[in-house]
Amino acid sequence: MVIVMAPGATEEQIEHVVERVESVGGEAFVSKGVERTIIGLVGDIDSFHHLNLRALGGVADVHRISDPYKLVSRQHHPERSTVWVGPAGHRVPIGPETFTFIAGPCAVETPGQTLEAAQMAQAAGATVLRGGAFKPRTSPYAFQGLGLEGLKILAETREATGMPVVTEVVDARDVPIVCEYADMLQIGTRNMANFGLLQAAGEAGTPVLLKRGMTATIEEWLMAAEYIAQRGNLDVVLCERGIRTFEPATRNTLDISAVPIVQATSHLPIIVDPSHAAGRKDLVVPLARAGIAAGADGVIVDVHPDPESALCDGPQALVGSDLRDLAAAVRRIPPLVGRVDAAERLQVT
Amino acid sequence: MVIVMAPGATEEQIEHVVERVESVGGEAFVSKGVERTIIGLVGDIDSFHHLNLRALGGVADVHRISDPYKLVSRQHHPERSTVWVGPAGHRVPIGPETFTFIAGPCAVETPGQTLEAAQMAQAAGATVLRGGAFKPRTSPYAFQGLGLEGLKILAETREATGMPVVTEVVDARDVPIVCEYADMLQIGTRNMANFGLLQAAGEAGTPVLLKRGMTATIEEWLMAAEYIAQRGNLDVVLCERGIRTFEPATRNTLDISAVPIVQATSHLPIIVDPSHAAGRKDLVVPLARAGIAAGADGVIVDVHPDPESALCDGPQALVGSDLRDLAAAVRRIPPLVGRVDAAERLQVT
Amino acid sequence: MVIVMAPGATEEQIEHVVERVESVGGEAFVSKGVERTIIGLVGDIDSFHHLNLRALGGVADVHRISDPYKLVSRQHHPERSTVWVGPAGHRVPIGPETFTFIAGPCAVETPGQTLEAAQMAQAAGATVLRGGAFKPRTSPYAFQGLGLEGLKILAETREATGMPVVTEVVDARDVPIVCEYADMLQIGTRNMANFGLLQAAGEAGTPVLLKRGMTATIEEWLMAAEYIAQRGNLDVVLCERGIRTFEPATRNTLDISAVPIVQATSHLPIIVDPSHAAGRKDLVVPLARAGIAAGADGVIVDVHPDPESALCDGPQALVGSDLRDLAAAVRRIPPLVGRVDAAERLQVT
Amino acid sequence: MVIVMAPGATEEQIEHVVERVESVGGEAFVSKGVERTIIGLVGDIDSFHHLNLRALGGVADVHRISDPYKLVSRQHHPERSTVWVGPAGHRVPIGPETFTFIAGPCAVETPGQTLEAAQMAQAAGATVLRGGAFKPRTSPYAFQGLGLEGLKILAETREATGMPVVTEVVDARDVPIVCEYADMLQIGTRNMANFGLLQAAGEAGTPVLLKRGMTATIEEWLMAAEYIAQRGNLDVVLCERGIRTFEPATRNTLDISAVPIVQATSHLPIIVDPSHAAGRKDLVVPLARAGIAAGADGVIVDVHPDPESALCDGPQALVGSDLRDLAAAVRRIPPLVGRVDAAERLQVT
Repeated sequence: MVIVMAPGATEEQIEHVVERVESVGGEAFVSKGVERTIIGLVGDIDSFHHLNLRALGGVADVHRISDPYKLVSRQHHPERSTVWVGPAGHRVPIGPETFTFIAGPCAVETPGQTLEAAQMAQAAGATVLRGGAFKPRTSPYAFQGLGLEGLKILAETREATGMPVVTEVVDARDVPIVCEYADMLQIGTRNMANFGLLQAAGEAGTPVLLKRGMTATIEEWLMAAEYIAQRGNLDVVLCERGIRTFEPATRNTLDISAVPIVQATSHLPIIVDPSHAAGRKDLVVPLARAGIAAGADGVIVDVHPDPESALCDGPQALVGSDLRDLAAAVRRIPPLVGRVDAAERLQVT
Repeated sequence: MVIVMAPGATEEQIEHVVERVESVGGEAFVSKGVERTIIGLVGDIDSFHHLNLRALGGVADVHRISDPYKLVSRQHHPERSTVWVGPAGHRVPIGPETFTFIAGPCAVETPGQTLEAAQMAQAAGATVLRGGAFKPRTSPYAFQGLGLEGLKILAETREATGMPVVTEVVDARDVPIVCEYADMLQIGTRNMANFGLLQAAGEAGTPVLLKRGMTATIEEWLMAAEYIAQRGNLDVVLCERGIRTFEPATRNTLDISAVPIVQATSHLPIIVDPSHAAGRKDLVVPLARAGIAAGADGVIVDVHPDPESALCDGPQALVGSDLRDLAAAVRRIPPLVGRVDAAERLQVT
Repeated sequence: MVIVMAPGATEEQIEHVVERVESVGGEAFVSKGVERTIIGLVGDIDSFHHLNLRALGGVADVHRISDPYKLVSRQHHPERSTVWVGPAGHRVPIGPETFTFIAGPCAVETPGQTLEAAQMAQAAGATVLRGGAFKPRTSPYAFQGLGLEGLKILAETREATGMPVVTEVVDARDVPIVCEYADMLQIGTRNMANFGLLQAAGEAGTPVLLKRGMTATIEEWLMAAEYIAQRGNLDVVLCERGIRTFEPATRNTLDISAVPIVQATSHLPIIVDPSHAAGRKDLVVPLARAGIAAGADGVIVDVHPDPESALCDGPQALVGSDLRDLAAAVRRIPPLVGRVDAAERLQVT
Repeated sequence: MVIVMAPGATEEQIEHVVERVESVGGEAFVSKGVERTIIGLVGDIDSFHHLNLRALGGVADVHRISDPYKLVSRQHHPERSTVWVGPAGHRVPIGPETFTFIAGPCAVETPGQTLEAAQMAQAAGATVLRGGAFKPRTSPYAFQGLGLEGLKILAETREATGMPVVTEVVDARDVPIVCEYADMLQIGTRNMANFGLLQAAGEAGTPVLLKRGMTATIEEWLMAAEYIAQRGNLDVVLCERGIRTFEPATRNTLDISAVPIVQATSHLPIIVDPSHAAGRKDLVVPLARAGIAAGADGVIVDVHPDPESALCDGPQALVGSDLRDLAAAVRRIPPLVGRVDAAERLQVT
């Protein structure tokens, strides 16, 4: 940490800062410049947080130097991690050596629609099935998902296709029941800072797909992952799904830079969701290609056998030629960036 | 709703849209322009949502015309509402005729610190006490609040001062216990879209202080209020607390325009939180003045007897001359915008 | 400046940084922490800029500590400045002790419309006339202003009313002609970083009203003022006019916090433009009140005798009761924040 | 255009709107809903702009339906355009069938540095040389470029390498001299809305590389291109270079979605600048790959023989293995998205 003193700070104020730092076992290095004095702190950063340094007299600013997360940091775990999803015999890797394609309907509506979507996805090369049973919706009057019935449909579809299932959980109270049916818990963009839910997912131990809050910085997102990790669950996959900006042409702006930045600072895998970023079907394939080429460890997209009748996010679901284009990209681009298709690494025993 | 067809849309596509609209009992008015055809829809908007219009062939865009919220809309309830907070004998109004000053410590730390902060607040003119027992923190390693012990301290402080208490609830499972001790539930910026929590607060019936999500549009914020209202609780006060922008000089940018916009579109009261918007003590008084002059129904600020030792948000807590300046503004500006001090309308029986 | 070395930086890399700093006459203080080494720099900051410190091996980050502007900084000129606008006999102050009301039509259309708008403005208490002759428009097909003819109309209106004139200049080549007719040059939001125009205005010596770029940080805005000051013109008044955010309800988000922040860091006066921030007439009066109460040194608003026929920005122009409300606010709120009306300080000789 | 009337709008107000529309030769279609009336307009959109519809009584909102640009719109010119850059014998295409790699130093410093950078670029596959002679800098105290001397160095380097030159122009007064030396005028992010400069570039007729304003919407950017086109110059290439968002980890957020959106709405070519978006060398290659895979018509990157000594933007300049990685991506990814390398289409006569 570095403390910047105000131009007119007195000797007493500088000494008071030094004393506070030393009182918790830290060291303070004072550098007096022409206009300002800066104080570098060395020691245990958590102890400094309790000092409330910004509130001390004469302090103009406090710059944090180290990353605030630990368990998810690449500094403490230099090798990038692989998270395995699914039951024994159908475990799918998500990590630095493979490329994983996850697809399925935004919302589970009927057994038939879910199976059909899963088969479309599988034919295009997907190895993990996504599908929503609990849907967080901006309007209390919109379709909120089938709940438990949806979970059962997902489990049946896994039975039929062999694809592990990832599905969203929106309330800490639902974590046990969702874990009973699903192979991976999705925590959505609106719940990224729902700390009670993060902790419940951390305690459950099931792998977690943690979407970025639509207005979260990368650092805040990694802190949310830290909440899960701190409860003992390090099987966390991050998912970039677009951030809120001033640009109205897309629902959100896919922050493609997040892929290399996360990979440089955290050991956790990161995938990209082009469907929810764009909100428009015609952008899904170009954005998925961009994500793959930027080095993402996977993509997750919406597919639906009949987008026109979808109860949720129909305008962004892929069918037909778009899905074929995406399948081609998933096969052809990953080898150019040093990866194999996750389907080839599937643990079938 | 207005549907804009793509320039090359065919007659069949236009007819298909009209048929879908009519299939749910709506009317469709077709206007053919030189380049584009637009279709105006008349009827029940909720039925149109299920049509998935954006996914129909030839549709370029769908513009929603009506507001998506109902119960909180001023269109359905033209007169602005007053929400009363506190037990019989100490009920404090928040609404269009009064100006309500809410103050207290960011976090409850000890009985002494809480009482001292409450007395400072009361001396400055505050009529409602704020104080956090459950603290949602970005870092799992930061102080998370005293929990139940904090609630008890708040109840004791109410006993001692007569000030009704507003405190944050961060988990749907905690709503019953918080309602036992507090007069008003605060739902914080990170939980504005935690729909399970909103519904639990709606069912509890206790008045709610709903902070704006730091990246929520005004419309999304009113939809969150609608979630509470839809469960039968219309005692909702909105709180503008700054939005996330590119400007780094403040923690958030206080969106002062939200005050007149909310008052024009919703009947719910709206107050301003300058402390959390700015994150800097020196901005609290100017921003509070701005909020009052813009016509807010109240302000909520952090005060602390010893900011240097505060366990949470010390740098923004007011003391001494700043608090006196704020007290003066609270007395002198509201009459210029047609209000009386809420203290004068207190229902003491 | 503070240099943060990467966790794995070597001794050689640290020494290389120190050598570079010393090679330009600076001092480098090295603090070795458990995980990272930080190096505090003391000396002439401009010389450090040429070192390209971020590109040196082992450097993770460089934090600037001092403000990058000098001439406009309050650190170098602690007393807040007053800028005087207008010819001898009609000089109007804009500064810390007064409150200045500037009003007029967005665009000059005809002599009659301009005079009528000026008289409306004057009757409401305005002492400076605004009006656009050169209009920067997003569309090349929109009304671009009357140019020289508009400047002549403004000069005639000044003759008739005694009000000094502020008008926009959009091209460095037009600065001399605009200076011939106007008392103050306005540099608009789109040209805030048009450095050639800033330098031309700096050389002209006429007072400048510098609007904030709609996406400029406060620091970038003060650097733009520094460009003008560096050419010898310190008569610069800053104007907050809203920044671009994700919120669609307003054209821009008025960043009211900019008022106290600018006043704390720069000695230049700052006024607020609620008309262009909001883009909606119904928000102009509440936002103007907020600006006054936050401590702005003035406001600038659009007025038009017949908004329905205005060639530019009609929807935000004030008339009738709104203008009377604003006039009342301008009279009544400034005394509460320690100011007198600029009209009382007018230098009429 | 669609006009939405306020809920309480009267018959007279509706009729007044209809009359105004008809007075300029338009047609108005009135649809009366349960709560609101909407009016669809058909006719010449420019004539409607002068009606000031938003200022009419009873009007709640006006939705524009058509795109505001014409000459650059794909609707009026369905086939995507190719822009050719360079003198006869060395013309390089930028367009839908090829992929063009532009590289060079951020700033021209010396003949040796420029030639060396050009040779590095050429060896990596670049066919157009970039280099700045006039540098717009946030600080008036930073290196502002060599000016005319820099232009001469660029021309010499073209002579030596055969690479056409693109260089920035920051002032309308400099357009003639820059056209004398350069093959393509770059208009930078800060000048995207400098309409005088856009018009001067339009009149010059030399091809233009128009960077996106860092806070411009895609629509505003296309309107800026329309300014150039309207003066007779359709040889405009757009360049996405990142937008300003709340995320601090990158200097700007590369809006990769802009690539497919621009290609769907405009016939002009679009390239990507990963260097200025990221501001960090380690992100340049992943972002360039993402741009190529998203379907961009080219990339432009900073290279420098000795980044440590660069006078401008050293931290983002590529050398060594990064440049080789980029060269590989430029060769291998474009064929996967249906393109050939522009070097193969070079018109050498």
